[in-house]
Amino acid sequence: MFFEGSEKKVELIVEPTLGSLRSFGRAFWTDIVALAKADIISVISNDQCDAYLLSESSLFVWDKRLVIITCGLSTLIDSLIAVIDHIGIANVAFVSYQRKNEYLAHLQASTFADDISQLRQKIPGKACRIGHLDSHHHFIFTSEKAAELASNDTTSELLMYHISGPLAQYLISENQSEQKICQLLQLDTLFAGFDYDCHLFSPLGFSVNGIKGDRYFTIHITPQEQSSYVSVETNVDVNAADNPIAVQLLALLQPISWDTIGFNTPIKAGAGSHNVCLAYCSYPIVENYHVHFSHFQQVDTEVLNPELM
Amino acid sequence: MFFEGSEKKVELIVEPTLGSLRSFGRAFWTDIVALAKADIISVISNDQCDAYLLSESSLFVWDKRLVIITCGLSTLIDSLIAVIDHIGIANVAFVSYQRKNEYLAHLQASTFADDISQLRQKIPGKACRIGHLDSHHHFIFTSEKAAELASNDTTSELLMYHISGPLAQYLISENQSEQKICQLLQLDTLFAGFDYDCHLFSPLGFSVNGIKGDRYFTIHITPQEQSSYVSVETNVDVNAADNPIAVQLLALLQPISWDTIGFNTPIKAGAGSHNVCLAYCSYPIVENYHVHFSHFQQVDTEVLNPELM
Repeated sequence: MFFEGSEKKVELIVEPTLGSLRSFGRAFWTDIVALAKADIISVISNDQCDAYLLSESSLFVWDKRLVIITCGLSTLIDSLIAVIDHIGIANVAFVSYQRKNEYLAHLQASTFADDISQLRQKIPGKACRIGHLDSHHHFIFTSEKAAELASNDTTSELLMYHISGPLAQYLISENQSEQKICQLLQLDTLFAGFDYDCHLFSPLGFSVNGIKGDRYFTIHITPQEQSSYVSVETNVDVNAADNPIAVQLLALLQPISWDTIGFNTPIKAGAGSHNVCLAYCSYPIVENYHVHFSHFQQVDTEVLNPELM
Repeated sequence: MFFEGSEKKVELIVEPTLGSLRSFGRAFWTDIVALAKADIISVISNDQCDAYLLSESSLFVWDKRLVIITCGLSTLIDSLIAVIDHIGIANVAFVSYQRKNEYLAHLQASTFADDISQLRQKIPGKACRIGHLDSHHHFIFTSEKAAELASNDTTSELLMYHISGPLAQYLISENQSEQKICQLLQLDTLFAGFDYDCHLFSPLGFSVNGIKGDRYFTIHITPQEQSSYVSVETNVDVNAADNPIAVQLLALLQPISWDTIGFNTPIKAGAGSHNVCLAYCSYPIVENYHVHFSHFQQVDTEVLNPELM
C-alpha cells in the first residue's frame, strides 16, 4: 500500500518571439508526458490555459509558459530535455527543475544530481538543495537566464505529510466520490469561480486541476496510511486575509508536518500553539525574486506501531 | 564532504554447546569483516571480550556472542550469512540484524528488504520498520528462535543528528588528537575503568571501542557539517542516577535531533524545555523483552543556507 507521491516539477517560460505552446496540441503533449512515463487522463481549457490531468499528476500549458508536475517513478527530466530540444535553447527564457526527496529514493531511475548533469549539457544554471538530508528536502535547478517576472508572478507550494482527521479518514474509506472529496476540500470556497477537473485513482489517490483566466491550482493526494502526502500548488495568493488558503487547507488536512515553498512570495502557514517552524531558508534566484522555504512540525508525541515486513 | 555514517548491525548469540567464538581468531574475523567491505584497524582484549576497531565501525566477540556494526557502503548481511554458514544454523541461539535508514539510500548495495529476503533463506524471523519513512527510521530483524536473556542483558543505542557546540566544532577542526577527543567526550568519567581503543580517520571521523569485563561501549562520530551523526552503543546502564550517560552525551554533543533504541531497557534521553519526543514505539521481540524507540527533536527554528550542487 505504498505510493511515491513525491514530485518532480518543471516550469518553463519561452521567449515572446516563439509561437504559442498551446498550439503544439494534445498529441505533442501526449508524447512529451509519455517520456516521463505518464498519460493524459483528461483536459480542461479556458482562453488562456490548457490544464491536463495526468496519470502521474498534472500539466498546465499557457501560450508562453508550462508547468509539469509528475510523481511516482516518472522520469520528468526526459520530458524537459525533449521540450527544450523541440523549441530550441534560444527560445527558453527561463526554466526551473525541481525535485522533492523521495520516500524510496533507491527505486527512482535517476537522482537529482544525474538529472541536472544531463540538463546542464543543454543550459547553464544553478542548483541547490534546501533542507537537511535527514529531513524533507528539495532540490531546485534554475537557469542562469532568467525572464523578467512580474511581482504578482508567484508560485506557492504547500506539501503536507501524515494527514489526519475526518478528511484523511474519508480518503482511505471505501465508496468515495470525486464530488464528495471536492466538497470536503471546500474547493468552491477556496478557489471560487475556478473550473476544475478531478480524478479518483484506484485503489486510492485523488488529483484535481483548476483554472480561472491565467490562474491555476492543482492538488494531489496520496492518502495511504504510513506515508500519506498531499501537495498543493498554485499561482493564486494563498495568504489573502479574506481567504487564507494555506491555513484553511492545513486545518482540513491536519498534517503532522508540512513544508511551504514560496517563489516570489512568503507563505503564511504556521498556526496554533502545537506546531513549530523547525527550518527556514530564503535565497534569491535572481534579484528581487526569492525562494522561501519553511518546514513545520506538530510537537505532539506520536505513538507508532512497528510496521511488519 | 559527505560520509554515510548510518549503520547496519548484527547481534548473534550461539548455543552453549558451540566452542568459543573468540577461538576462531583474528584471521577468521578479518575474512568475515572483509565480506562487509571492512578492515580490522586494531584490537583490544580482556578475559571476556575481543574488541576490534574496523575501518567501518566495530566488531565485538565474546565466547558466546558477537556484535558487528558497520557504516558507509558496507555489506554486513554477507558477513552475517558467512558466520551462520560457518557455525551452522543449529548453533544459532538468537540473531538480530538491524539497519538504520541511510542518508543516501540509492548508493547502498542492497535494501533492508533485500537483506532479509536473503537471511530468511537461512533462518526464520520477524522484521519490522520503526519510525516513519520520511523521518529517521530503523529496520530490525529478529530470529524466531530467541535465547533466554537475563534481565540485565540490555543494549542501549543513542543516535545523534546535527551535533553542535564546542565538541562538534573541535571535531571538524584541524590538528585534532585522539587524546583530546577522548578527554572532551569525558570517557574516563562516563565509562570509568574501561580499556579503550580509538582511531581518528582522515579527513574526518572518530571511532572508539571500550571494554571492561563483559561490558562494552562504542562511539562512532561522523562530524561532517550538514550531515553530522554520532552513534553510541553499549550494554552499560545509560540511565543510572549517578552517571546518566545518555543525558551527559546529549549535553556534550548538542544534537538537533536524536533517536534512542533500548533493547530490554527504556532510555532516559529527553531533557530540558527545548526538545520534544515526536515519536515513541515499544514492542516485544519475545516475552518480557521489549524494544523501546523514541525520536527527539529540538524545537528551535534553524536558519538554513541552500546547499549548492
